[in-house]
Amino acid sequence: MTTAVTETGQERKAPGRPRSAQADEAILDAVLELLGGGHSVAAISIEAVAAKAGVGKATIYRRWPNKEALIIDAVASMKGPLPVPVGESVRDDLVMLLKASRTGRSLRYGQVTVCLLPEFLKDEHLHDMWRAVMEPRRDVMRQVLRRGIAKGELRADLDVELSLLMINGPSMMQNMLQWNPAVPPEGFAEALVDAFLRGAAA
Amino acid sequence: MTTAVTETGQERKAPGRPRSAQADEAILDAVLELLGGGHSVAAISIEAVAAKAGVGKATIYRRWPNKEALIIDAVASMKGPLPVPVGESVRDDLVMLLKASRTGRSLRYGQVTVCLLPEFLKDEHLHDMWRAVMEPRRDVMRQVLRRGIAKGELRADLDVELSLLMINGPSMMQNMLQWNPAVPPEGFAEALVDAFLRGAAA
Repeated sequence: MTTAVTETGQERKAPGRPRSAQADEAILDAVLELLGGGHSVAAISIEAVAAKAGVGKATIYRRWPNKEALIIDAVASMKGPLPVPVGESVRDDLVMLLKASRTGRSLRYGQVTVCLLPEFLKDEHLHDMWRAVMEPRRDVMRQVLRRGIAKGELRADLDVELSLLMINGPSMMQNMLQWNPAVPPEGFAEALVDAFLRGAAA
Repeated sequence: MTTAVTETGQERKAPGRPRSAQADEAILDAVLELLGGGHSVAAISIEAVAAKAGVGKATIYRRWPNKEALIIDAVASMKGPLPVPVGESVRDDLVMLLKASRTGRSLRYGQVTVCLLPEFLKDEHLHDMWRAVMEPRRDVMRQVLRRGIAKGELRADLDVELSLLMINGPSMMQNMLQWNPAVPPEGFAEALVDAFLRGAAA
């Protein structure tokens, strides 16, 4: 990221926030709009992003080395900061992590992700970049489960990797597709975590 | 479905199977290849399907009322016949149902499904058609769970709809995306069902 520089002149807006942060946000929003609107990665050009964001192409190239990096950054930007578990109760921490992935912004994230999935099948490198961005988030939950085992809250023989899948799989299918409309969104995180813990508790 | 009729003449192949069944299969395969190759529903034309399948457009229109019906039929054709649970053990039935959704053909199904998901966001009617095709399969598992509750194998207060999501969500995320590569495919169905039952058993 560079600091604010003079660009097209059109971007002269209210003072207060640095110019570069405004431009960054406009660029990331433009990518998300294009992706969420069903444009494939191949169909998204830096030109189109620049036009939609109201910035010059150079502004984009100064900040991101290539289109793939920009797209992964845009998707990651929807997730917000990495959540920090309290560390007192496995249940509370898991519910917090699931709720953090179900905010309004994240539901839009679910839809954008759906549009990216076919791209991952076509482009393993893009898939790897996405995995690298998501891994720290997955690891937060992994640490919660490991701490639960160490403190005796969870079964000593719990399969941590399978558990990650059992907690995130249902949540993602609902976020992305509302896979089972008969499962209400209210209280979903609590219900899922409680059902999981019934079999996972020590 | 009509019985065999004379069409382009090009289709005169080895006798034995009815001509119409051969043509049907070629048509459905062509759709799946186009979908799996990353073509969007909008980008798939009846012309392209006909050319790929080596049949005339009329052959397709005689069998399917429109492109959407053809595409849903093609996706459904990958699932094979509706599985029939034995009804003796909830565990055995759930493992069988999960394994039925993880054959080689179904893994390809997972990939084709991934390519269809963005289309569902764009076209609610297509999504509804897909749900209608999938609902009988979902209902097979629902009946297994209900029978388990009735026979006292499962907790009386089990949330059946949440349970469907807890069993299918992790399985779909693995089939479609191999979401957690640290979870091995061997023994996956058994491990998931056993972990689920630990909390769901009476």
